[in-house]
Amino acid sequence: MLSETIELSGHIIDSWTLPRAWDTIMDRGGNFTVEEMRVGKHKTETSYARIRVEAPDEETLERIMSELQQLGAVLVNGHDVQSESVEQDGVLPAKFYSTTNLPTQVRLNGQWVDVEDIEMDVVVVVDRERQRAYCKPMHEVRVGEQVVVGHGGIRVQPFERGREREAFAFMQSDVSSEKSKIRAIREIAQQMKETRERGGKILFVLGPAVIHTGAGRYVAELIRRGYVQVIFGGNAIVTHDVESALFGTSLGVDLHSGEQVEGGHRNHLRAINAIRAVGSLEKAMDSGLLREGITYEALKHDVKMVLAGSIRDDGPMPGVISDMQEAQRRMREALRGVEMAIMVSSMLHAIATGNLLPSTVRTVVVDINPAVVTKLADRGSFQAAGLVTDAELFLRELVEALNQLETAR
Amino acid sequence: MLSETIELSGHIIDSWTLPRAWDTIMDRGGNFTVEEMRVGKHKTETSYARIRVEAPDEETLERIMSELQQLGAVLVNGHDVQSESVEQDGVLPAKFYSTTNLPTQVRLNGQWVDVEDIEMDVVVVVDRERQRAYCKPMHEVRVGEQVVVGHGGIRVQPFERGREREAFAFMQSDVSSEKSKIRAIREIAQQMKETRERGGKILFVLGPAVIHTGAGRYVAELIRRGYVQVIFGGNAIVTHDVESALFGTSLGVDLHSGEQVEGGHRNHLRAINAIRAVGSLEKAMDSGLLREGITYEALKHDVKMVLAGSIRDDGPMPGVISDMQEAQRRMREALRGVEMAIMVSSMLHAIATGNLLPSTVRTVVVDINPAVVTKLADRGSFQAAGLVTDAELFLRELVEALNQLETAR
Amino acid sequence: MLSETIELSGHIIDSWTLPRAWDTIMDRGGNFTVEEMRVGKHKTETSYARIRVEAPDEETLERIMSELQQLGAVLVNGHDVQSESVEQDGVLPAKFYSTTNLPTQVRLNGQWVDVEDIEMDVVVVVDRERQRAYCKPMHEVRVGEQVVVGHGGIRVQPFERGREREAFAFMQSDVSSEKSKIRAIREIAQQMKETRERGGKILFVLGPAVIHTGAGRYVAELIRRGYVQVIFGGNAIVTHDVESALFGTSLGVDLHSGEQVEGGHRNHLRAINAIRAVGSLEKAMDSGLLREGITYEALKHDVKMVLAGSIRDDGPMPGVISDMQEAQRRMREALRGVEMAIMVSSMLHAIATGNLLPSTVRTVVVDINPAVVTKLADRGSFQAAGLVTDAELFLRELVEALNQLETAR
Amino acid sequence: MLSETIELSGHIIDSWTLPRAWDTIMDRGGNFTVEEMRVGKHKTETSYARIRVEAPDEETLERIMSELQQLGAVLVNGHDVQSESVEQDGVLPAKFYSTTNLPTQVRLNGQWVDVEDIEMDVVVVVDRERQRAYCKPMHEVRVGEQVVVGHGGIRVQPFERGREREAFAFMQSDVSSEKSKIRAIREIAQQMKETRERGGKILFVLGPAVIHTGAGRYVAELIRRGYVQVIFGGNAIVTHDVESALFGTSLGVDLHSGEQVEGGHRNHLRAINAIRAVGSLEKAMDSGLLREGITYEALKHDVKMVLAGSIRDDGPMPGVISDMQEAQRRMREALRGVEMAIMVSSMLHAIATGNLLPSTVRTVVVDINPAVVTKLADRGSFQAAGLVTDAELFLRELVEALNQLETAR
Repeated sequence: MLSETIELSGHIIDSWTLPRAWDTIMDRGGNFTVEEMRVGKHKTETSYARIRVEAPDEETLERIMSELQQLGAVLVNGHDVQSESVEQDGVLPAKFYSTTNLPTQVRLNGQWVDVEDIEMDVVVVVDRERQRAYCKPMHEVRVGEQVVVGHGGIRVQPFERGREREAFAFMQSDVSSEKSKIRAIREIAQQMKETRERGGKILFVLGPAVIHTGAGRYVAELIRRGYVQVIFGGNAIVTHDVESALFGTSLGVDLHSGEQVEGGHRNHLRAINAIRAVGSLEKAMDSGLLREGITYEALKHDVKMVLAGSIRDDGPMPGVISDMQEAQRRMREALRGVEMAIMVSSMLHAIATGNLLPSTVRTVVVDINPAVVTKLADRGSFQAAGLVTDAELFLRELVEALNQLETAR
Repeated sequence: MLSETIELSGHIIDSWTLPRAWDTIMDRGGNFTVEEMRVGKHKTETSYARIRVEAPDEETLERIMSELQQLGAVLVNGHDVQSESVEQDGVLPAKFYSTTNLPTQVRLNGQWVDVEDIEMDVVVVVDRERQRAYCKPMHEVRVGEQVVVGHGGIRVQPFERGREREAFAFMQSDVSSEKSKIRAIREIAQQMKETRERGGKILFVLGPAVIHTGAGRYVAELIRRGYVQVIFGGNAIVTHDVESALFGTSLGVDLHSGEQVEGGHRNHLRAINAIRAVGSLEKAMDSGLLREGITYEALKHDVKMVLAGSIRDDGPMPGVISDMQEAQRRMREALRGVEMAIMVSSMLHAIATGNLLPSTVRTVVVDINPAVVTKLADRGSFQAAGLVTDAELFLRELVEALNQLETAR
Repeated sequence: MLSETIELSGHIIDSWTLPRAWDTIMDRGGNFTVEEMRVGKHKTETSYARIRVEAPDEETLERIMSELQQLGAVLVNGHDVQSESVEQDGVLPAKFYSTTNLPTQVRLNGQWVDVEDIEMDVVVVVDRERQRAYCKPMHEVRVGEQVVVGHGGIRVQPFERGREREAFAFMQSDVSSEKSKIRAIREIAQQMKETRERGGKILFVLGPAVIHTGAGRYVAELIRRGYVQVIFGGNAIVTHDVESALFGTSLGVDLHSGEQVEGGHRNHLRAINAIRAVGSLEKAMDSGLLREGITYEALKHDVKMVLAGSIRDDGPMPGVISDMQEAQRRMREALRGVEMAIMVSSMLHAIATGNLLPSTVRTVVVDINPAVVTKLADRGSFQAAGLVTDAELFLRELVEALNQLETAR
Repeated sequence: MLSETIELSGHIIDSWTLPRAWDTIMDRGGNFTVEEMRVGKHKTETSYARIRVEAPDEETLERIMSELQQLGAVLVNGHDVQSESVEQDGVLPAKFYSTTNLPTQVRLNGQWVDVEDIEMDVVVVVDRERQRAYCKPMHEVRVGEQVVVGHGGIRVQPFERGREREAFAFMQSDVSSEKSKIRAIREIAQQMKETRERGGKILFVLGPAVIHTGAGRYVAELIRRGYVQVIFGGNAIVTHDVESALFGTSLGVDLHSGEQVEGGHRNHLRAINAIRAVGSLEKAMDSGLLREGITYEALKHDVKMVLAGSIRDDGPMPGVISDMQEAQRRMREALRGVEMAIMVSSMLHAIATGNLLPSTVRTVVVDINPAVVTKLADRGSFQAAGLVTDAELFLRELVEALNQLETAR
């Protein structure tokens, strides 16, 4: 039997860390001995456990340690983090450590150092001289960089229930459509206000249904009020937004009368063509061609807009990024300073964003389809609060809730 | 080859009646000859077709005629409707004519007579002496009654697109969640207002999610304003409504704070028990025990409430009808004079109601789950307009839309 | 501050009992002191905790104790269970104890006694003389019966992870459609075989889609092989089953060619009428009218069939129970000895059955709609394993998996 | 009033072309006069209509003509198609004609010429000298090319019901999960066999759930049997396929035992890294690293695989195309000769493919989520037959149905 000794501390029982750890060990075929345990006697007291983990072989032990680490387990031996050199551009050392989106530290020269720009499913590159550690996606590693391997000298900070609670009471609840949303919307409005008051940025990830339902006006209003600093979307949202600004339609449906005003998809092609003819969205605004809508307001109020293309796009609209790695790079850049993310009626871009967000960003996923929210949660975005509701009515109520908060001041 | 000759008239091309008729004949293995055809030259002109339908055998011909009839086809031969005598209570003559929910006439003594209380999947009983025809469900037919058989002397009035359009513009659209609902909600509010102005009754079919989401207050408001004359529901809606009135919870969730305030389902059992102890909902109101909520307002404003039980019920709450045939009878009775039906977050009761409604009642089905609306439409409730949206936000916006209409006056 | 002292023992950390208990206390506004704690050092060792629970008022304490009890907490004081007399038929004492579906014991005359026929959301009646305790739904309690009140002297046995695991490995997984079902189906087949070998009964709860999809043949096969002892369903399943036996159609669709062979719903009315004419399903079988299908096989092989009506039924078919309380009573009766329940494409009857099943019955819910499974789980049927898959293909594979198991012997 | 005269001919009533045309004219605010009408007297006779369409202004008339054209209407005046010169790369003349995916002809020098490589939402470029016309997406048009504008000289061939029927009987049915799929699967197998016998190519569009459910083995089998000529997918399917070939897992779940064997997503990163290390999928096969799975079989049997990236990708796997316009180009190329398309558990790539497919390609969309199929149909892929069922069980049954067909030979 091989073994390692780990420590867990904090609200490890009421945050379900300890039971999860035991589950993991047993599920993966290991065994454990509790070497020391101190249980908090009151709800404010933390607990502590030192556990020896045993496994029949190296691979099993490795697997168990990998999972325990995500729960905040720290190896008792006090060694530094290990790293190996990249030997081929874009190729990792075989034993690379793959990140979670939780706040993470590595021990460098005996000191715990924060991993910068943490996101999940990437690797950690360390720079021992400058005593720094940061995240990099696989395809960006370069020969000579030191990539973290193994499990020693890594510390992940898992969620603790207490802190979550204050932040977002409704987050604990499931994604049911059978609960009151008005209250949740008010909480979100409150969070948005507080985020802005302390200078945090708010990201909106938007799908085209926002335009089709006529809810673009509410997003435009939020931009004007200063509640949107970053927008992620694709070719569809920008195209239909411009279509609605230029022709008053979205997918050929008149947004005022609700009637189909042209056959099929022609107006959105016309919208793309019109912008291509002037050269860019910025020029369309400057020339007076584009006079309203989300894109217009975003350009006018210096909202950072990252438009990532996809394989199903027509056009594309100028400004939409065709190369996926470039688009991811631009999204990563735009995420700096984002403290809150609101994802509305978007699946592809919401999942892509979820992959890039650190767990500390408060995230709200709004979709009428429960599967979308579930899908996000499945991919490890623990911090996502799902709201199964109508996007149009959600945005309308959100604007109203912010109105009430501001009037109440 | 056997044959029958039918006539179709009206907007039979633009209402898709003629193509559907041809489809039917071909799909069922028949053949046809157009004996005469006059096509309306303009959109206001009706068309006319006389068609000889041929089939290889009696059964096929019968099947084709049965379907053509639902499209408004009338047999050219001028005979009266045929009927046979019931020989055993609750058992029909083998060749019984099974109704649709479309307005239907039968020829009695050479004259076309309206079938009263039309609904689908029941039979027509004729009373030749009193020159009357009316619907009856199978289990209610009694020995000696004359039940319509075969297809002669029956005239069904199918939908024509023109008339529909005026009524409910958004009905043509599909049940997509990707369209603007605000406009549709305003149209519904307008229809409700008009219905009330001409003295028509409005039916609400309600599921328990209306209470769980805290939207009971909006329904209560609609009752107080006179927009609800009949309510259909089950044990769950009335129980959770009373639970919320007595304890401020629904399924144990505090409706104000959104927090779980008791373990599991105990409060709803307490609510039922409390009403059972005083004897009835009416006595609970009279004694001051029940002071608010949908049930309270319904009792106070003489809204007809039919509460039909189901196999999954706890309790049940006094007033909930345990016998399904009695419940259907009471629902049929309460439907007299209903001109509009709004079904919110209810599947079982909405389907049951859909079965009983004539096609002339304008019906709105609101559910966050598209499958529910589709299911209703599948069962032949052609007149149902589906709105895939959030029940709570729908009811909130509906109250607001009615406010605006009333203020605008 | 008021307080009570409780004990928890068993796998209380790895079964998440202890963290849940702490959550509950904190969420409901209480406080706790761990008076004693012994943590199992290895995965086979159990743990023990004695906890003093404090709350600011009687109501809060009561609520907390009510929830802790469901987690297996036992009051340290050694009193007998308390009970009060029923004073009005069908009305409970105000402080009635409401059951869960977990195995439950009450202390009578100093001894722990099993509560018979446990199901959720009913009450416990005790008979101190005969030293017995059993469940009763509210409407069946009679004047003079002793109903359990409060929380003392009650012991609930929660799930422990270990035991679950052996039973149904795939139960831990969520209801995802993105996992392999073949393996899960084989496990279910294995469980069915074992259940039958030890003489346990298997219940099938069936919705009408089983017939519409042509999968009735697989259920008939399972009956013939002895894998079905009880069937729960409604008017629809029996009607379409008879329709398919008599006319080869289901909802008018030819089950062989898949084509619509008659207009709308007429054949199912004819099926009901035909059985009404002979008087009963049994007579239809005896007379040779009914020669195949689920109902035929069930009658022939003495499968207990409970058909519960609903408000949406046509007919109904003879044998369908119209009174909901009578139907529930018959379902309760038929559940004796059932050790496994398989629910296919049924929502209403599955929820109704879920309410009546003790947690010890292994339950499989098969539906293509994830919402149905989630809904069941929400109602406290912890033991339900959900399979989001196609009912027809599930049943087909189940028959094949049983074939393989039998051949392998 | 402005006017144009059009002709419609063929099965214009039973294919619902004429009523749709009238609807269109009326819905868009126009008017019509039937100048001549000949109605087919029998089901095999075609009909003919010459209709004068009137509209109050140029824009309305334009819109109406645009829609009528998609129904097969041809302008009576016998002029050639009109075109305008591209004046800026990637920018269209303002009045560009936007295609449908229906077979289309344009009149060049008095002769009707087929538009090559038809797909929807692109434009038609004409080469009058070589008497050719072909499709081009907006971003590929180059200065000097002649792009078709307006509506004259264009002929679209709409679906006629008759032909459809033979092809795919179940296509007429909706996407219901409540119908038998076994029969539909047999029809699909039959079509696949016939397609291969006449040398047509079959395209599979695959989502990652195919691997997660363990159904990759069935696709591999279909490749080996020669039933797959083209595969479209993304980074996820290829990554999880390689992950399952290298490590026996998909998303970290062991495909044999169904158990989670590693924490989170690490194995798929390892799989990508392993292929990156050897350089390409081809080299991985040649070197013996990759020995099984869909990718392996595809490479071995010269199946054309187009892997299009997306914004949510990790890695990416070598061979995945990062540039969306390049990916679309490669997909267009690979579609030559494809006569049948089967899309399983893929939304993004299925929609993208639907956009590129001409209406003549028989398409089957298989997904457990009805919304996916509906979404495809909404985008104008009329020819798509939806099957709401389980992907794993579908593929398993498809292999078996092909077995039976081959054995039956």
